[in-house]
Amino acid sequence: MSEIEKKLMSSVDIRARQIAANKLRESFEKIIEAIMKGEEPVLVIPKRTLSNTIYDRERGLLLLGSGTFERSFLDVKEARKFMQTILMARIIYEALVNNEYPTIRDLYYRGKHSIRYRDHRNNIVEENTWDEQKESDAVLRDIEVYVNLLREEMLILSKEKGKVVGDMRIKSGDDIIDLSKMGHGAYAIESTPDLIEFIDVNAEFVLVVEKDAVFQQLHRAGFWKRYKAILVTSAGQPDRATRRFVRRLNEELKLPVYILTDADPYGWYIYSVFRIGSITLSYESERLATPSAKFLGVSMSDIFGDKTTGKKPYLTESERKNFIIKAKKTDIKRAQELLNYEWFKTEKWTREINMFLEKQSKLEIEALTGKGLYFLMDNYIPTKIETKDFIE
Amino acid sequence: MSEIEKKLMSSVDIRARQIAANKLRESFEKIIEAIMKGEEPVLVIPKRTLSNTIYDRERGLLLLGSGTFERSFLDVKEARKFMQTILMARIIYEALVNNEYPTIRDLYYRGKHSIRYRDHRNNIVEENTWDEQKESDAVLRDIEVYVNLLREEMLILSKEKGKVVGDMRIKSGDDIIDLSKMGHGAYAIESTPDLIEFIDVNAEFVLVVEKDAVFQQLHRAGFWKRYKAILVTSAGQPDRATRRFVRRLNEELKLPVYILTDADPYGWYIYSVFRIGSITLSYESERLATPSAKFLGVSMSDIFGDKTTGKKPYLTESERKNFIIKAKKTDIKRAQELLNYEWFKTEKWTREINMFLEKQSKLEIEALTGKGLYFLMDNYIPTKIETKDFIE
Repeated sequence: MSEIEKKLMSSVDIRARQIAANKLRESFEKIIEAIMKGEEPVLVIPKRTLSNTIYDRERGLLLLGSGTFERSFLDVKEARKFMQTILMARIIYEALVNNEYPTIRDLYYRGKHSIRYRDHRNNIVEENTWDEQKESDAVLRDIEVYVNLLREEMLILSKEKGKVVGDMRIKSGDDIIDLSKMGHGAYAIESTPDLIEFIDVNAEFVLVVEKDAVFQQLHRAGFWKRYKAILVTSAGQPDRATRRFVRRLNEELKLPVYILTDADPYGWYIYSVFRIGSITLSYESERLATPSAKFLGVSMSDIFGDKTTGKKPYLTESERKNFIIKAKKTDIKRAQELLNYEWFKTEKWTREINMFLEKQSKLEIEALTGKGLYFLMDNYIPTKIETKDFIE
Repeated sequence: MSEIEKKLMSSVDIRARQIAANKLRESFEKIIEAIMKGEEPVLVIPKRTLSNTIYDRERGLLLLGSGTFERSFLDVKEARKFMQTILMARIIYEALVNNEYPTIRDLYYRGKHSIRYRDHRNNIVEENTWDEQKESDAVLRDIEVYVNLLREEMLILSKEKGKVVGDMRIKSGDDIIDLSKMGHGAYAIESTPDLIEFIDVNAEFVLVVEKDAVFQQLHRAGFWKRYKAILVTSAGQPDRATRRFVRRLNEELKLPVYILTDADPYGWYIYSVFRIGSITLSYESERLATPSAKFLGVSMSDIFGDKTTGKKPYLTESERKNFIIKAKKTDIKRAQELLNYEWFKTEKWTREINMFLEKQSKLEIEALTGKGLYFLMDNYIPTKIETKDFIE
């Protein structure tokens, strides 16, 4: 590393890339050894298939099972994938030792080229390493499970929308940052939240708000000061870094996590991503998911009340008339799909989703701030938390 | 204001809302006076039409002309709009004095209700104040030009994607924030950037990067330290706050602004929004646009070179083959539209757009980081700036 590069980079990153480079090299050394011994090089990779995905009820996590598959260089069906895997490992390793911070799009571009070779008829033919990013993304995932390192640990960056404010100090890179001194702005969470060190925290819970504008409203009105909260927004569908950051707040600082979204299947799905992650990416779930995250609202019974429990609605008849939006066909379809998810098969979620299917109505969180920001801040949110009126 | 609310809120916001509330009240007092005197209440509002929009070549800004129109309560065609305008003014005023921070969506919800009245046949009829947000948004714009206050000055918030890092200190709310101490994260710019105070700055230029991931890469590699830059990302299409923040960096701190986007009509349009804003919202342009912003790249001549000027391309033949994406029909259409914009009718832009139409090729900025992050950071960007190889 040049002296200039070293000076520009945080010491945290320098350490992280050494660890990742070593682990990556060790994992692939077996392949080199096999080749040197004249043996067939074979990668034994954990299966990322649905059949090898286990929902661990106890921990509330999706986990990869013990199933593996072999990717051999001398198998005609596997040779291309084998080449792609080794190519991707090389690109990542080079990026690590060259102090680069690639994105997955970069990795795709870096590997994209044509290989010229002579076929069995001695004709020169050309084949592309890969044509689309979904091919390079797939081998990146293989490497993540093979080496047992998430992409972030290999200093692969991605766009990041998550923001946070609250009474806590963190160390990121070589800086100590006071998240209670962000003015009207916020701290934009880094792509690699595992490299953040929690210094100290003075908070009782984490509130994750789906919508950035609502986050800003609550921040400006001093919600986190008043209720001793760490306030986070995912600004829509949460990205990996926001999920990992929230998980660490929960796991390491023992802070309960409440999720606040629109009352619609899209909002529930955001909750689901925080809580469990994606079925097809179960290997991430173990690190990124927050199984104890609670869905604070907005729930259907907040809108309509619930006769079976005697719960009164937060909206009056005329507010409902003005605020409610008719559900679309895609909403209904999405809701029906969610009913099949293991973690939505609880009594409360079934009631929630069925009430949605019956009423065919949804509500935006802005309908509550429309009723008044202080209604949301000083009535709705604290009441829901105090009375434990959330869904797990 | 309750003592608790006051303690939770920044003193900057308390002052800002007093100023806005006074200005709003003064602007509408004439209406009350007219009514008290038994005169017809009439609002005289600057026209926001295209015909009243002037492109000021000297300042490079879109400005509203002197044209106005009257909105009278007693004109049957105008009565509904008059009611909506007064309703919106009331909602904004109440939000200001009640220490709220509404979004435009909130304003829509707050005003949405049915008015019951007796018609000339003495039948009771119902009419909605507004049915869709585009109606409430339109009267909000009328109020902005009527009162001569942008929505942000009335403490109306919106979602905000812009981030910044660099060697400068700002005051936001009651906090002083060191933008050079953000670790691997960044400072998320507030919705109301006019309330930010610049304390001190040690930088020579502003680099605005379209893509958040590229911003993070350059940040992590220490670009802003090495080249004394303020590094900003708009994370796609820039929102109002990012545009205003960049404009203030340019106007008040006299820092040149360079914009780095993909080489495609979408990227040029992002540049155009920073440089001039939207034709249909010309009244914002005077405050939000940065007329001297320079398009740093990626330009078509960076990809293909330019025989007329003897410029060599930054990509080799084989890189072009691997990195270039074929333009879509919508890209071509968009490029042709841009040729009609007054500020794209310069020699350099015409050449750029025509080269695109000829080659029918586009390029993502990731193709350059794919070539190497340090190529982008230490070769491409500094060379482009040093040799003044940008488009204005």
